[in-house]
Amino acid sequence: MNIGFIGLGIMGLPMAGHLQAAGHQLAVVQHRTPIASELLDGGAVVCASARAAAERSDVIILMVPNTPDVEQVLFGPDGVAEGIGAGKVVIDMSSIDPIATREFAARIRALGADYIDAPVSGGEVGARNAALTIMCGGEAATFERVLPLLQAMGKNITLVGGVGDGQVAKVANQIIVALNIEAVSEALVFAAKAGADPARVREALLGGFASSRILEVHAERMLKRTFDPGFRIALHQKDLDLALSSARKLGMSLPNTAVAQQLFSACVARGGAGWDHSAMVRAIETLADTELGG
Amino acid sequence: MNIGFIGLGIMGLPMAGHLQAAGHQLAVVQHRTPIASELLDGGAVVCASARAAAERSDVIILMVPNTPDVEQVLFGPDGVAEGIGAGKVVIDMSSIDPIATREFAARIRALGADYIDAPVSGGEVGARNAALTIMCGGEAATFERVLPLLQAMGKNITLVGGVGDGQVAKVANQIIVALNIEAVSEALVFAAKAGADPARVREALLGGFASSRILEVHAERMLKRTFDPGFRIALHQKDLDLALSSARKLGMSLPNTAVAQQLFSACVARGGAGWDHSAMVRAIETLADTELGG
Repeated sequence: MNIGFIGLGIMGLPMAGHLQAAGHQLAVVQHRTPIASELLDGGAVVCASARAAAERSDVIILMVPNTPDVEQVLFGPDGVAEGIGAGKVVIDMSSIDPIATREFAARIRALGADYIDAPVSGGEVGARNAALTIMCGGEAATFERVLPLLQAMGKNITLVGGVGDGQVAKVANQIIVALNIEAVSEALVFAAKAGADPARVREALLGGFASSRILEVHAERMLKRTFDPGFRIALHQKDLDLALSSARKLGMSLPNTAVAQQLFSACVARGGAGWDHSAMVRAIETLADTELGG
Repeated sequence: MNIGFIGLGIMGLPMAGHLQAAGHQLAVVQHRTPIASELLDGGAVVCASARAAAERSDVIILMVPNTPDVEQVLFGPDGVAEGIGAGKVVIDMSSIDPIATREFAARIRALGADYIDAPVSGGEVGARNAALTIMCGGEAATFERVLPLLQAMGKNITLVGGVGDGQVAKVANQIIVALNIEAVSEALVFAAKAGADPARVREALLGGFASSRILEVHAERMLKRTFDPGFRIALHQKDLDLALSSARKLGMSLPNTAVAQQLFSACVARGGAGWDHSAMVRAIETLADTELGG
């Protein structure tokens, strides 16, 4: 299949590589940094614009940082919208605003093409290993058509619902991950402050109702003080921004998500934008004047 | 072994029954309600006071509601402290204040006896099935000595650390459980408010980093609207009271635990003290003017 791939960053580059390895013809766009030589060696065509890439492709995949970037790529000058029409599909794999996603999809559909939102989780490691979790929104028939492409990049691939619902699921995922990190942080710092060994408390809790992937994986990072990402606090802050701004538009309250965002900000205040998100525990440690490792 | 068992409520009665079934001689104390006939038929001796039960027992087990109840049973008139001495062991399986626990243990040890705190999780079902998780604090030698008794009542039995550390682990467990329920509530209500099907969002998230026992078990209760306990909100409120009052004494801040307690209180305001703790979602639904089932 002819695939336009826009956004060849830390995530996008290995994802595009998997598509190429699966035999697809890539059209890419020169952006800030030069196109990686492995893609060029594999036969990727470099286009002058997103419009040009869209014109020669059946499917256009976006993997860019945030909502305004998607809007720019789709609807800016020489954007994807100028190069698509009936039968083509835009797949936005970026993590962006669910409400804006529905507006973008409506504008793309008005041009005769279709739209799937397909944000991912699993990070850089998942992207490299073609093991991403992919949460999709859109029409079932379109989803089935592009599923082989998604299967080249990920493993746990779900059609959650209509367009935008993939982004909703991603936001929900990031809310739970942040709040479970916060929960484990409060519990283990409490245990340490109360004089217990937080590592032994964690062991006693694994297997019971407190068990979670976060208690398994991130609590161990907290105890071993290994805060190299992983997943950067700055990125999780972006995701909670999406949660909180969407909640604001929808007219609902997310009290603990708001607190978790402030705790991430307390880490950033200490230079922690690049720490792994499990380092939120440092903000809770500050609230207790104690350290798990101390 | 001769065992004094004080506190034959919903949890204590089946626990005492398992000890009797394992061949131990029970001494019990008449309290509010008559002693269950199955214990009497099994040979339990009814004593006039906790002191009398302690006098004829090697091990005295407490399973009472809260910190003041433990203090009364141990140190009140005709209490356990008047009936114990060298070689005897007090096992407090109630869920109470970790800091008070250390004071109680010191007073019991001053009388020549030893003290193990051994709060449980697993609820009524775990108590009936002898499948409780038991989190212990105390001396290793004493723990080994009473371990066969604990094994008659539970399965996942851990010596977390010194005296009080079992109670610390229990509080940490209840913090995580409450906050993971809160996290799933915010995420699923957000998803519903944003127009997605919360059941399909939950399915998409199971297996990823958002996965937890709470997302498996309690989120299903939220979606199916099955809020019969389970574990009553009033009991979880007691546990968060312990967390927040201990944190206050220790001089530390538990921001999201405090919010979770207020959300439980919002449920109680609507008559929900007896609802399962997963019904915390109803407070979040109120914050969004939407319902998962709606």
